[in-house]
Amino acid sequence: MELENNADFTIAQLSAALRRRRVTSVDLTEYCLDQIERLQPRLNAFISVTRTGAMQAARRADREIRRGDYRGPLHGVPMSLKDLFWTKGTATSAGSKILRRFVPKVNAAVVDRLLENGAVLLGKTNLHEFAFGATNMNPHYGPVRNPWDSARISGGSSGGSAAAVACGLGVYSLGTDTGGSIRIPAAACGCVGLKPTFGLVPLAGVVPLSRSLDHVGPICRSVEDAAIVLDYVAGEPRRTRYAASLSPRLQGLRIGIPKDYFFERLEPDVRAKVVEAALEMERAGARLKDVSIGGMKETADLAGTITVAEALAFHRRWLDRKPQLYGEDIRIRMQDARAMTALAYLTAVERCRAYAARMESVLQDADMLLAPSIPVGAPLIETTEIPWGRAREDIRLSLLRLTRPANLSGLPALTVPCGFTRSRLPVGLQLIGRRRHEHTILNAALAYELRTPWHEQFPQLPVHP
Amino acid sequence: MELENNADFTIAQLSAALRRRRVTSVDLTEYCLDQIERLQPRLNAFISVTRTGAMQAARRADREIRRGDYRGPLHGVPMSLKDLFWTKGTATSAGSKILRRFVPKVNAAVVDRLLENGAVLLGKTNLHEFAFGATNMNPHYGPVRNPWDSARISGGSSGGSAAAVACGLGVYSLGTDTGGSIRIPAAACGCVGLKPTFGLVPLAGVVPLSRSLDHVGPICRSVEDAAIVLDYVAGEPRRTRYAASLSPRLQGLRIGIPKDYFFERLEPDVRAKVVEAALEMERAGARLKDVSIGGMKETADLAGTITVAEALAFHRRWLDRKPQLYGEDIRIRMQDARAMTALAYLTAVERCRAYAARMESVLQDADMLLAPSIPVGAPLIETTEIPWGRAREDIRLSLLRLTRPANLSGLPALTVPCGFTRSRLPVGLQLIGRRRHEHTILNAALAYELRTPWHEQFPQLPVHP
Repeated sequence: MELENNADFTIAQLSAALRRRRVTSVDLTEYCLDQIERLQPRLNAFISVTRTGAMQAARRADREIRRGDYRGPLHGVPMSLKDLFWTKGTATSAGSKILRRFVPKVNAAVVDRLLENGAVLLGKTNLHEFAFGATNMNPHYGPVRNPWDSARISGGSSGGSAAAVACGLGVYSLGTDTGGSIRIPAAACGCVGLKPTFGLVPLAGVVPLSRSLDHVGPICRSVEDAAIVLDYVAGEPRRTRYAASLSPRLQGLRIGIPKDYFFERLEPDVRAKVVEAALEMERAGARLKDVSIGGMKETADLAGTITVAEALAFHRRWLDRKPQLYGEDIRIRMQDARAMTALAYLTAVERCRAYAARMESVLQDADMLLAPSIPVGAPLIETTEIPWGRAREDIRLSLLRLTRPANLSGLPALTVPCGFTRSRLPVGLQLIGRRRHEHTILNAALAYELRTPWHEQFPQLPVHP
Repeated sequence: MELENNADFTIAQLSAALRRRRVTSVDLTEYCLDQIERLQPRLNAFISVTRTGAMQAARRADREIRRGDYRGPLHGVPMSLKDLFWTKGTATSAGSKILRRFVPKVNAAVVDRLLENGAVLLGKTNLHEFAFGATNMNPHYGPVRNPWDSARISGGSSGGSAAAVACGLGVYSLGTDTGGSIRIPAAACGCVGLKPTFGLVPLAGVVPLSRSLDHVGPICRSVEDAAIVLDYVAGEPRRTRYAASLSPRLQGLRIGIPKDYFFERLEPDVRAKVVEAALEMERAGARLKDVSIGGMKETADLAGTITVAEALAFHRRWLDRKPQLYGEDIRIRMQDARAMTALAYLTAVERCRAYAARMESVLQDADMLLAPSIPVGAPLIETTEIPWGRAREDIRLSLLRLTRPANLSGLPALTVPCGFTRSRLPVGLQLIGRRRHEHTILNAALAYELRTPWHEQFPQLPVHP
């Protein structure tokens, strides 16, 4: 089969081809490794490429599949991991200088799950230092560049994962999401990104940012692929077989549109595309209803307080001993947090619980909420602030503004491509579901995906950059 | 049937008699209410007695049982609740002046579970103010006095519950345990007290002390009764039907004896009784082995830090507006905690997790740990410090010293009577089990109970005080 960066380059399609031996894992892996070599100078999506290990794993997968020992849809499919996941014997930098030489002795729990099921690891992707930011401007490894316009950021902190998946440098990737770090780069790069319910996917062996808000999830090229990966990484007890129960559904769904907060301060093209997507869903039988969630304004403060306090607790010894190894942005934020009182932190935790209860109560009368994933198309690399009329918003706060609510509430949320701005930058549609109702938002996103052409468009990159 | 404070005054025995209509719930409830009236001046075990509601519930239970609508072992059996559990329409003071007039609109989740199954609520028991202490010296409602010697404390914070159960003022009670508040008074009053695994029993509708360490559990007159109550209060998902699977078992069990920490600074009679209990278990076929848990010394600091920080977060508004309504001991501790940094709090939380992992690792080679529940017989009411040779230990720290480890680790722990000091004060044997292995420690405690006479002894109180 001809390999190229098109709509067939998915786990679902490629695994079918691998199983029927219309393609080998070695061919597929070589294609991806060649693409990485070609595009890495342009994108800077990877921190390390594990070529030898990938080829070994691919040959093993081919042998196993040939002898009839087929292990399921991940078998022989090349993928990448955000360099925040512990990988046994392979350096895990967390995008930092501090851990530049850290080689874990064990895999993260989810990495074991993928590898046991035949996944082929291509390498570890670039990220915002210690996952503590949304731009992916990394002072040690350089920025990840957006595949749709390399003058622009990928978004972060799982920026390398999203850029890689968008360009077919691997078929999927695992990211992490503490304030939006899966959904932000997935939206900015035109991928599907899923942040599951808090606690559904085990965090063991993932370098922490903020244990109360950290989530692991997939960045993929289709909604179906996200369901497939979720099947392998979700922990026990399992309620659902996500891929097997996937079925496009919008008919009769009640979709809440939270106009306050989620539809304020948006780039006009982003607003237009998201509203268009909502109307498309309505045409498919969904019922749109305005909903209002109280107290949204404080979510940025709550998320900021909890994240920085927990980040400081994890980093305290390194900050004492070798502060100079940190990038300035995250060092200053953590040092400032030394003065935070336990009362301020615990008050934020309490308000966060109250906020989660309000979100859940709104979701008693709606099956999901619909919102943009990020308020702008991917900004230019030099951007530090986003102008909104006469006001200006720090770029970090802009990018995190619409994704943080699902971290604070722990509710499942995904982003699915819903069109392009006039500058041909992807726009992401965010669906936020009920606790443990990943299947509902996956089914709705699948129905939307089947009705729209956005998943068939890919960044056009020069063959010889 | 003749009602008296003897070994038959258990849920197991009385529910059998109720079902066979050898006694009515009305007789049983009247007996308990009369006993309360008689002994309340001496013990001060109750903050409020719900006589009218109790008699109504008893009549309803009798009607239901007569018409064959029997709902199980709690049906018609009188009990009490620590005044920390929300009770719909009945004041819930939390032992405080602040909440003196607080009448909840709903029941705590566990209270609903008990009442739906026919429990007869006699009243709300006295406690340490806001459950924030171990002596039960309550400045607003007076101390709870020990049934074995009314010059002595009951221990706390569920002191009223333990004193009531020891004297048959109700057949069982629900308490809460954040640092030992079920096990301390149960041990000091000669009852069985069970603190289940963290998270097993829902906390909804329980006035919080420290949400990371709070646990709900029963105080009972026998091990079997503790298993029966646990069946009703344990949340989902349930692994075990505790009472149905109860079966005395010590043969072949590996019991770890943590000599460091748990056997230091004990009253000689307490040490002698606990060692005797261990040897009795060995005679019953258990294998005793010395174990060592690192880093026990810091547990007091960790528990203190986490508890006071979370208590302050809950109480902050009342402390601002009406500090004078608090007793001095808890007010000063909370006010002092305003200076605590988030880093100090989160460092304690992290160390607490590491400590829990050490406990669990010790329990890989042992089925349970055995220790005293409290290091002394119930102290005299005026006691502020316990002398150990030349050193002195604050009474609060003494009482909490041996119970806090199971709160920090979240592991299930129970206390069962194992004899008396020379001053005829009960001694409690503590068993600490693996996470969610309540059945293992219940089975061992039952086997021990069946081999020993301690559960057949009750405080002798004058008929007309």
